Amino acid sequence: MNKRKIINDPVYGFITLSSDLLFDLVEHPYFQRLRRIKQLGLADVVYPGALHTRFHHALGAMHLMSLALKSLQEKGHLIWEPELEAAQAAILLHDLGHGPFSHVLESVLMPGVAHESVTLVMMKDLNRQMDGRLEMAIQMFEGTYPRKFFHQMISSQLDMDRMDYLKRDSFYTGVIEGSIGADRLIKMLDLSGDTLVVEEKGLLSIENFLHARRLMYWQVYLHKTLLSAQAMLTLLLQRARTLSQQGEELFATPDFSRFLKNTFSLIDFKVQSDLLGSFNGLDDNDVWASVKGWTVHKDPVLATLSKMLLDRNLFKITFMDSPPDDMVLDPLRQQLAESGISPEEMPYFLITGETTNWAYEKEQDPIQVKMKDGSLLDIADASDIPTIDALTKIVRKYYVCWGKNVSLRG
Amino acid sequence: MNKRKIINDPVYGFITLSSDLLFDLVEHPYFQRLRRIKQLGLADVVYPGALHTRFHHALGAMHLMSLALKSLQEKGHLIWEPELEAAQAAILLHDLGHGPFSHVLESVLMPGVAHESVTLVMMKDLNRQMDGRLEMAIQMFEGTYPRKFFHQMISSQLDMDRMDYLKRDSFYTGVIEGSIGADRLIKMLDLSGDTLVVEEKGLLSIENFLHARRLMYWQVYLHKTLLSAQAMLTLLLQRARTLSQQGEELFATPDFSRFLKNTFSLIDFKVQSDLLGSFNGLDDNDVWASVKGWTVHKDPVLATLSKMLLDRNLFKITFMDSPPDDMVLDPLRQQLAESGISPEEMPYFLITGETTNWAYEKEQDPIQVKMKDGSLLDIADASDIPTIDALTKIVRKYYVCWGKNVSLRG
Amino acid sequence: MNKRKIINDPVYGFITLSSDLLFDLVEHPYFQRLRRIKQLGLADVVYPGALHTRFHHALGAMHLMSLALKSLQEKGHLIWEPELEAAQAAILLHDLGHGPFSHVLESVLMPGVAHESVTLVMMKDLNRQMDGRLEMAIQMFEGTYPRKFFHQMISSQLDMDRMDYLKRDSFYTGVIEGSIGADRLIKMLDLSGDTLVVEEKGLLSIENFLHARRLMYWQVYLHKTLLSAQAMLTLLLQRARTLSQQGEELFATPDFSRFLKNTFSLIDFKVQSDLLGSFNGLDDNDVWASVKGWTVHKDPVLATLSKMLLDRNLFKITFMDSPPDDMVLDPLRQQLAESGISPEEMPYFLITGETTNWAYEKEQDPIQVKMKDGSLLDIADASDIPTIDALTKIVRKYYVCWGKNVSLRG
Amino acid sequence: MNKRKIINDPVYGFITLSSDLLFDLVEHPYFQRLRRIKQLGLADVVYPGALHTRFHHALGAMHLMSLALKSLQEKGHLIWEPELEAAQAAILLHDLGHGPFSHVLESVLMPGVAHESVTLVMMKDLNRQMDGRLEMAIQMFEGTYPRKFFHQMISSQLDMDRMDYLKRDSFYTGVIEGSIGADRLIKMLDLSGDTLVVEEKGLLSIENFLHARRLMYWQVYLHKTLLSAQAMLTLLLQRARTLSQQGEELFATPDFSRFLKNTFSLIDFKVQSDLLGSFNGLDDNDVWASVKGWTVHKDPVLATLSKMLLDRNLFKITFMDSPPDDMVLDPLRQQLAESGISPEEMPYFLITGETTNWAYEKEQDPIQVKMKDGSLLDIADASDIPTIDALTKIVRKYYVCWGKNVSLRG
Repeated sequence: MNKRKIINDPVYGFITLSSDLLFDLVEHPYFQRLRRIKQLGLADVVYPGALHTRFHHALGAMHLMSLALKSLQEKGHLIWEPELEAAQAAILLHDLGHGPFSHVLESVLMPGVAHESVTLVMMKDLNRQMDGRLEMAIQMFEGTYPRKFFHQMISSQLDMDRMDYLKRDSFYTGVIEGSIGADRLIKMLDLSGDTLVVEEKGLLSIENFLHARRLMYWQVYLHKTLLSAQAMLTLLLQRARTLSQQGEELFATPDFSRFLKNTFSLIDFKVQSDLLGSFNGLDDNDVWASVKGWTVHKDPVLATLSKMLLDRNLFKITFMDSPPDDMVLDPLRQQLAESGISPEEMPYFLITGETTNWAYEKEQDPIQVKMKDGSLLDIADASDIPTIDALTKIVRKYYVCWGKNVSLRG
Repeated sequence: MNKRKIINDPVYGFITLSSDLLFDLVEHPYFQRLRRIKQLGLADVVYPGALHTRFHHALGAMHLMSLALKSLQEKGHLIWEPELEAAQAAILLHDLGHGPFSHVLESVLMPGVAHESVTLVMMKDLNRQMDGRLEMAIQMFEGTYPRKFFHQMISSQLDMDRMDYLKRDSFYTGVIEGSIGADRLIKMLDLSGDTLVVEEKGLLSIENFLHARRLMYWQVYLHKTLLSAQAMLTLLLQRARTLSQQGEELFATPDFSRFLKNTFSLIDFKVQSDLLGSFNGLDDNDVWASVKGWTVHKDPVLATLSKMLLDRNLFKITFMDSPPDDMVLDPLRQQLAESGISPEEMPYFLITGETTNWAYEKEQDPIQVKMKDGSLLDIADASDIPTIDALTKIVRKYYVCWGKNVSLRG
Repeated sequence: MNKRKIINDPVYGFITLSSDLLFDLVEHPYFQRLRRIKQLGLADVVYPGALHTRFHHALGAMHLMSLALKSLQEKGHLIWEPELEAAQAAILLHDLGHGPFSHVLESVLMPGVAHESVTLVMMKDLNRQMDGRLEMAIQMFEGTYPRKFFHQMISSQLDMDRMDYLKRDSFYTGVIEGSIGADRLIKMLDLSGDTLVVEEKGLLSIENFLHARRLMYWQVYLHKTLLSAQAMLTLLLQRARTLSQQGEELFATPDFSRFLKNTFSLIDFKVQSDLLGSFNGLDDNDVWASVKGWTVHKDPVLATLSKMLLDRNLFKITFMDSPPDDMVLDPLRQQLAESGISPEEMPYFLITGETTNWAYEKEQDPIQVKMKDGSLLDIADASDIPTIDALTKIVRKYYVCWGKNVSLRG
Repeated sequence: MNKRKIINDPVYGFITLSSDLLFDLVEHPYFQRLRRIKQLGLADVVYPGALHTRFHHALGAMHLMSLALKSLQEKGHLIWEPELEAAQAAILLHDLGHGPFSHVLESVLMPGVAHESVTLVMMKDLNRQMDGRLEMAIQMFEGTYPRKFFHQMISSQLDMDRMDYLKRDSFYTGVIEGSIGADRLIKMLDLSGDTLVVEEKGLLSIENFLHARRLMYWQVYLHKTLLSAQAMLTLLLQRARTLSQQGEELFATPDFSRFLKNTFSLIDFKVQSDLLGSFNGLDDNDVWASVKGWTVHKDPVLATLSKMLLDRNLFKITFMDSPPDDMVLDPLRQQLAESGISPEEMPYFLITGETTNWAYEKEQDPIQVKMKDGSLLDIADASDIPTIDALTKIVRKYYVCWGKNVSLRG
């Protein structure tokens, strides 16, 4: 059986699975689940084209990894065939541990469990199933493989993960200003010892990459309307969980039900042999199917929030420069009270939050530039204008988000 | 409140909602549901990028309608503002009546009920809710509006529906050979009296359009792997329905459950006042959530088919030139029997079918070309080579589709 | 000195020069001249973006050759490093012998000398300058290299030349319907012995390729306005040549002057040691600079034609199904006579011609498809509808082309 | 005769000429000349695709003007039909006064004559020929039209000129990081009184636009290799001019000859009635044809420089942070002297220069942002991070450029 396979990708044209191992990983139910998890969660409430999945993103990142490593080979760096395959496998699997609507759901259902940790548990389980064929990939993912640039290409400020997601998210949202020249960036990568660096002539491309990232954050990832939808989903999952843990019967698939009713820690994933299976049973469909089922639930808060989210009747949201105080909140509370929201229900219809964005973290893991004279400089020092420095500034915004014209269903 | 709105679209850049009515239609739960129904159903089993929804398609078709009507205006044809809005409204709503996985689900759950009929029922319901503002749009959709070119632009062999879906499907699958020059096609449209025609200099563009359509059929819509996945979904829905109607309790959202248990006719949609609501509760998430729930059902056929589809462990499929006979089928039956499939279960793991493709129907509703001398010709007669004629040939293929290495779960 | 080089290309992103030989060829004045020769000659009178050069086309074809050969390697065919380089070199140089405005100029200045022959003379000269490094490339170009698929990839109905020019011409003209899926086509190529074939699953891509080619012919290469401009340039070069050979002094660069005054045969290129140098001195700039210089020449025919072409004041042109007879021509002659055109001048302002287009030549060098059962079929026999057959039909059109509102300058 | 016309454009798809006046302007020899003047001069020595002309750029800028004005109309601003046409006419003609290889040639042949001034002379001449139909367009171009936003859209830091050239140059060079979201930028434009402003939600798009501009400057417009080629062309034109003014006969078209022999001031353009005609006779072909003719000139400096430029045998160039001093220059002078370059010839083979780049000029003509509360802010003050401020920093680089391995031809 021929396991070499070519997959159509609107972003890059074609993606090639270049080894049996990679083919087998893609076929595995752990990876197939990613077909049912959208990369950008709820972002299609703003950008209707943003429906691409973690499945496609992972394939795209693997594709870029393959291009980047071949480019390094052409520059004279020795990279062995098993390393090439392991690095592709590692980036292919790097998002396995994401649940649906990642940050929303994790914060409610699995507080304190980082998705990277779940990824690692799943990779190790796969490695066991596959008789150790993922040993090197796991080392690269964890950062224990001696040649550390492999880890940097999987996870750093200039990794293949970011390159693919910026390019892909820009493509599917239609926010073309966020587009990056991934081809050129990749050709600018080089090694200095075992460290990933950028050639001096790639400086402007990196600047562009960081600016594009900042733009995508404000324009897409932290878009007001998206934050509002995420807040609503968070609130309704909290409500569902509270009800569920009070013994209320809620419509949900068996696996989703298990997570609504219990709070698992990372240890549980390692010791409860069937928990990974349940986790792998979770995807976007559970959430939406449940939300639909809950629109007729007798709890008016759950039903109302569900119906509102479903029909894209979203909360209002306002950004401000400082945390909203009672001057801001009291009128809203009053408005909600007049709509019939009780004090107990209030926290489900009025929330505050903050959000931050910084495009480049100088302190940890700086991007290093190899100057023509061979010296290495932090990108912020190599640029001829202080624009990169500007990007290290953390921009923090506060918001208040509340239901307008809510009428409780019950 | 400003209801003019601009929506990002990777295909056209931006789509503008140019009137309050159009804005209100888009906001309506009937239209918002289309966000949760993929245009190409299961096609992402082959083309992982093909996740675009009927929501986006409908907006795209409305966009093309607006461009086309403006182009006709520039050519000197009088088109009134209310006509412009009505034509956009009609095409915006033309797919309301589609259920999830349209052809699969309709054939099993609503046999004999055409989606166009459901669309019309929903449009009329909307018209009622909106105090008659959709009167003209409905006439255009039904074909009773006097200027018949509006209906042709909504539904004919050269309508805005096809133009958008070919362009959009080609874009999201990455099958770039299926791309059409929609901009140019639209500029080539003209009127002869109240009939939609194509300028002679658009002849090659039409040829290209028809060829692209033929290519998309074989390459995408009738792709072997997609047909196999559709067959599996059909079979598992049939099984679920059978069990359900036998009184078996099946995991499903309330609305989906209603359709599993009952067989509704078009009349029911008109007389049961809450049926439209239930129908509008159906979307892709129901099917996937149910399939996931059914993987642990005690019926081994349902559980097995569900698990196989979920993990993309698809049936084998082979095309042939004549209907498969016992020479072909007997060995497969024997193979399946050896896997433990009983004669009663056999029809769920071995099916035959046929599929046809013709790119241009000459008989009904031919595409008419306005020659430079003013005469009208059928496109097939206007072309200088017999290639259009070739496209009217119906190509029929037969297939057999069966589960390989099935092991029944129970 | 590092001779690996990356060249930006809007069509493919980047093109890599992968060896010293290829770098040296690109640097050579013979190849640099191609920077000054537009691929589509006068086509920018219709498509203002169509300014791309034979230089870029040759690089693009080399790029596709490299992709195609690597794809064949991945399918298990042995292709040696020297073959890979030679095939790239051969396709890189395949257009060396083109003069500016190729068909126009050759027909007037070098009747009977095919550009392929001049290419070969130049390749052999380069080979001499480069101490035989082009030996294998020349064999591949000539078709004497034993593995004949290399020659097919350089020159056949499915060669890298056509793939690049269709894709590139479509891109720069903006005629997107002419776009082909070069990536996919290349992945569909395979070998049967030493013959280039297409996999069965590439059938639709080939159909699409042939249709795109037909479309580009009518829409671009044989566009009426372009034919008219070419006719005018032909006529004015004929006039210039006639005057020049009568001893009239005409403004022209020294090299262009040499070709205006003399008629060279292929033998001359081989025996006159400096003739290749003069030929290499010819490019688009000579023609345009001369045409500008000639607008003030005292010969009214030359001056008038020059001024008209320069200001894009083009001849009218009409296509017809049979050769234009006196019924058609007499009124035009009379019109021109009334504008003051004498009988001697008439042939410079009224010409007739014919043009043909066929997308696929079945007889010589058919495209062969490798069916799944291993058999080889001509593409026309492998298709399921007679559309390919239709494309073998030669479509012939006749035209008359004449100056309207000419007023002779002198 | 139908003067509405549609022109293919790979960048925007189609460009429409929407009035008779615009059609007539495009047909005029003044505008047709722009077909023969490349937008980026010599840039194709680095980016072989960068062959687009000022003709296409002017059409593109007109297209964006039309889109922008229609968007302003949709926002409720009254713009009369004659204003719409005049603004399109003005931007269409804004580059008429550019000569070939604009900055190079102007600096040598027409010192002290700004191309904008020549544009104005030509527009006035056209206005005379067209019986005053360009009156309003000229006012807009000059900035005397009362509603000053029209002038800002023609010439400011956010004009349609820049938007088109950034988008077009990025497209044709293949430097995709320089791409801007022109569609979105245009939709973000608004008026505050008669001043052009940007909506607050367009802030990030403007940042992106400025960053893209900075990138294009370093990556394309000030690319080292391009600067070197420009230096060579400057030097060889200076040599030609010196020789020409010494009475030496040089190969050149009559019009080009006139400019080589004389130094014209702006007054001359207004009083010498045939000078505009000669100026309009200049285009890229003159320069290249002359350079080719001069390769065999007896002056060794002229011949050598010509041959080197023609074969892309370019000078070396090095950037430095301060003006190169004798420490840098002496070794180069010695090297050149050893190659046989005399002290008199030295300035033709060794030059120094400086180049500056700043992306945003805050002082004059700042870009103003209309905040949600209605106030106007300079873009640098409206941004949440100091990145725009960083862009106002002037970056200055010095360079030395010299012929390596020169061997004088004579």
